[in-house]
Amino acid sequence: MDKNKFNFKTSVRVRTYEVDWQGIVHNTIYMLYCEVGRVEYLKHIGAALDLNKVNSSNRVVLSRNEIDYKSPARFDMEIDVYTRIAEIGNTSFIFEGMLRDAATDTLIAKNRAFHVWLHPQNGKPIPVPEEFRRLVRSHEGANLLENPAEPDKA
Amino acid sequence: MDKNKFNFKTSVRVRTYEVDWQGIVHNTIYMLYCEVGRVEYLKHIGAALDLNKVNSSNRVVLSRNEIDYKSPARFDMEIDVYTRIAEIGNTSFIFEGMLRDAATDTLIAKNRAFHVWLHPQNGKPIPVPEEFRRLVRSHEGANLLENPAEPDKA
Amino acid sequence: MDKNKFNFKTSVRVRTYEVDWQGIVHNTIYMLYCEVGRVEYLKHIGAALDLNKVNSSNRVVLSRNEIDYKSPARFDMEIDVYTRIAEIGNTSFIFEGMLRDAATDTLIAKNRAFHVWLHPQNGKPIPVPEEFRRLVRSHEGANLLENPAEPDKA
Amino acid sequence: MDKNKFNFKTSVRVRTYEVDWQGIVHNTIYMLYCEVGRVEYLKHIGAALDLNKVNSSNRVVLSRNEIDYKSPARFDMEIDVYTRIAEIGNTSFIFEGMLRDAATDTLIAKNRAFHVWLHPQNGKPIPVPEEFRRLVRSHEGANLLENPAEPDKA
Repeated sequence: MDKNKFNFKTSVRVRTYEVDWQGIVHNTIYMLYCEVGRVEYLKHIGAALDLNKVNSSNRVVLSRNEIDYKSPARFDMEIDVYTRIAEIGNTSFIFEGMLRDAATDTLIAKNRAFHVWLHPQNGKPIPVPEEFRRLVRSHEGANLLENPAEPDKA
Repeated sequence: MDKNKFNFKTSVRVRTYEVDWQGIVHNTIYMLYCEVGRVEYLKHIGAALDLNKVNSSNRVVLSRNEIDYKSPARFDMEIDVYTRIAEIGNTSFIFEGMLRDAATDTLIAKNRAFHVWLHPQNGKPIPVPEEFRRLVRSHEGANLLENPAEPDKA
Repeated sequence: MDKNKFNFKTSVRVRTYEVDWQGIVHNTIYMLYCEVGRVEYLKHIGAALDLNKVNSSNRVVLSRNEIDYKSPARFDMEIDVYTRIAEIGNTSFIFEGMLRDAATDTLIAKNRAFHVWLHPQNGKPIPVPEEFRRLVRSHEGANLLENPAEPDKA
Repeated sequence: MDKNKFNFKTSVRVRTYEVDWQGIVHNTIYMLYCEVGRVEYLKHIGAALDLNKVNSSNRVVLSRNEIDYKSPARFDMEIDVYTRIAEIGNTSFIFEGMLRDAATDTLIAKNRAFHVWLHPQNGKPIPVPEEFRRLVRSHEGANLLENPAEPDKA
């Protein structure tokens, strides 16, 4: 995962209640930080989530989540949350997230979150809408991998 | 708060991720345990929450929460969660929760959670439905304080 | 609780995973926001928490938490978190927190969090250290109530 | 992932505050359920975590987490949490978790959690202790893959 491929970054600061009994950020919290990154990314590219329209014609689900823990985060650390959409297939797309200590640029964790676009009524996968694809393409440029012959599962 | 006034008890076991950097259960988690107690209580008395009907004719909100922390809970502790409805007013009712170490009966925390019944459309307080009042009265018996002249706010 | 008595404010933005099945921020999350406020307040007045020194000579515990819910917060709302220390007694002090919608100034919730200073070894209440008292007094000025004859419990 | 290879099962019940704005359990909560499973598994095989000894001679970290979401869990669902250690390498081991609806046996999610054993002082990987290996081998029997030529990373 190459930091230079990310065109979007937001940041979070570690809160007391995110630190576990070991004095480090709990393993699921890193995934929440990546979720914060995805929400801000979508706003940034003009595809903001509208939680008041969850039953609308768009329905996207997370099908798989992968995270590699590289270095623990600690209380009050400011963390840079890099976010990009790395791949768009026919009915799915992959968000990548990278967490780095803002002070030292130390790599904290890397996340890949696989999403699938579903039909709002029957729940079957449907093609990623062209409008969404266009917004992502416009933001990601040449770094975006579209319709890979063989989707990268890991 | 008198343990003998509680006719219902459930239990929870402290999980790793509920323990904070001090090695004790985080202060908001005790309130979540009391919420678990309230859900099980409602099932027990026959007034189960139906989260699939949140927009139905019943709408109850939490208006105030109070908790006294008496002794910290620790990892893997089994906690008895005592729950009762202590008071029902015209449009509101008060849940009491008491957390005790199941092994030693040590008091861990005491919670009072004030609820108000709202009109589902206009959001104004409406009288507690007779059916709910009847179920609570049947379970609590003489311990239930109904329509106190002056609601106990603390 | 008077907004003008608060000399410190920070802010948080509501995250996806803080919203519950009702589409509003879960009742315990407001307390977490107030905890964020307290941490930033302590940094601001020069009394920062050091979570790497939890076994040091200072040990402060939360003994009671009260919150009044006034208006629900929703996804992506920016919330102003007002924080002050309202009272310092002999061995205890009270943090007040007030949450307001940053866009409209609508009151969301009010919190009072009662803290007690404990002896690090024997766990008995000890006097609030003079250094801490001085830092708070310096920040709060005339709004700080010191050693009230009768502590305000609610 | 084959249900028949799991020799240990515990269960959890979905709580109100684990359900998100979509009415389904939030994506990180499934990982917490798997963590509950790992804790109970370790107790069951006689290798219980002692959170009061975190600075002792044993130090194990989570290096990677993978989860496939198959079917959403909902409020009040009882979930069977199957847990096993599938592989032990020289310095690492892999926990597998499988979540199934207890009522219908519907597959909800599958998790692989990669752990590494570290030297408590210098933080470098060290061999998995023989005692731990023996306890796992005794519980898992022939299903346990030991020292695979090529560790399965995904």
